[in-house]
Amino acid sequence: MSTPTERLNHLDLELPGLPTPAGNYVPAVRSGNQLFIAGTEAGGMHGKVGHDVSAEDAYNYARATGLMLLAVMKQELGTLDRVTRIVKVTGFVNADPLFADHPQVINGCSDLFVEVFGERGRHARTAIGVGSTPDQIPLEIEAIVEFSDS
Amino acid sequence: MSTPTERLNHLDLELPGLPTPAGNYVPAVRSGNQLFIAGTEAGGMHGKVGHDVSAEDAYNYARATGLMLLAVMKQELGTLDRVTRIVKVTGFVNADPLFADHPQVINGCSDLFVEVFGERGRHARTAIGVGSTPDQIPLEIEAIVEFSDS
Amino acid sequence: MSTPTERLNHLDLELPGLPTPAGNYVPAVRSGNQLFIAGTEAGGMHGKVGHDVSAEDAYNYARATGLMLLAVMKQELGTLDRVTRIVKVTGFVNADPLFADHPQVINGCSDLFVEVFGERGRHARTAIGVGSTPDQIPLEIEAIVEFSDS
Repeated sequence: MSTPTERLNHLDLELPGLPTPAGNYVPAVRSGNQLFIAGTEAGGMHGKVGHDVSAEDAYNYARATGLMLLAVMKQELGTLDRVTRIVKVTGFVNADPLFADHPQVINGCSDLFVEVFGERGRHARTAIGVGSTPDQIPLEIEAIVEFSDS
Repeated sequence: MSTPTERLNHLDLELPGLPTPAGNYVPAVRSGNQLFIAGTEAGGMHGKVGHDVSAEDAYNYARATGLMLLAVMKQELGTLDRVTRIVKVTGFVNADPLFADHPQVINGCSDLFVEVFGERGRHARTAIGVGSTPDQIPLEIEAIVEFSDS
Repeated sequence: MSTPTERLNHLDLELPGLPTPAGNYVPAVRSGNQLFIAGTEAGGMHGKVGHDVSAEDAYNYARATGLMLLAVMKQELGTLDRVTRIVKVTGFVNADPLFADHPQVINGCSDLFVEVFGERGRHARTAIGVGSTPDQIPLEIEAIVEFSDS
């Protein structure tokens, strides 16, 4: 059994620099052994999914957002190997009112979590279409993660 | 005092088959004694509430979604009688931009939970109108539930 | 070091009366040492932010909503001084589809929490634009708060 850190290396993925919160908040807060991660964006893309942004581009953006969430976890916990479970993922897609493929888009993040954490990466999830997002980014994802003390 | 299982029988309600997740996620994840249930749909209806779908039909759909959430709880915990509290319910209504009766719609789920769990079924709740939903279903509901070990 | 109660007094802020839930739910539920607060509104204003309501008015409304959330915490815990951490804040802005300044708006609540709780008030946060809200209020905010036993 390989560790999440080993899998990340095997996938040849590098964690990006940490996001700068867009307001008066912090990237993540711990409560007990749960880590609550703020709504996170990958940056560098704007527009409504199903209108300006294709579902495929949005999938890739969701994957990049997932990498950013991993960067927050590593920053908070020291190592991804302390993650015992990805508990919940919520994906907010800045979508055209008639868009219907939110699950396929947010899979970009979910697929990454399962690749990196295996069974521990399988999470409960909600994916919905919002009316607008900060700076009109295509989507934003938040997560609740369970971790061990060491 | 009757149990939730007895109340469900008394109400002559049958739990539906479990939903198939629409993406790479699972219906629910436990963290400590909290069960995080994914955004869940009842299925079989499409359209925007306040436009294609009446508030009354949406109420009934929210109740059907509540039954689906009960089915997930039973599957995860073995019995509804282990539920110690419905902690939080979030209802995402695929609504016309001018729709204003989200609370009345999501009451379809909340009323059911109070009927089945009594005081333990009374929860904190958020009900809002989203711009779009997966497959254009009328609404989607997620929940956090506290349970006992046995 | 002053306490949250002292800071509130120093800021000359008075907590408003508790909100009446708009549906079949309660203002807050405890699970372990976490308090889950329902989606809360300040009341008295209606319209879409970026269209009928300016970002500045929405900021002030978010601050008023934050005061309402403090009122719920005090009601549930007896005193704000039992709050050990504002864990998570989620702000749902009833925004024009092209609105982009959700973070600045929800800062109205976040700034208040940091003024009252100091470092313990710094939270993870998601701010997004929803398509509609109950009664077409400009925004609604929910929160998860950690508290100590005494």
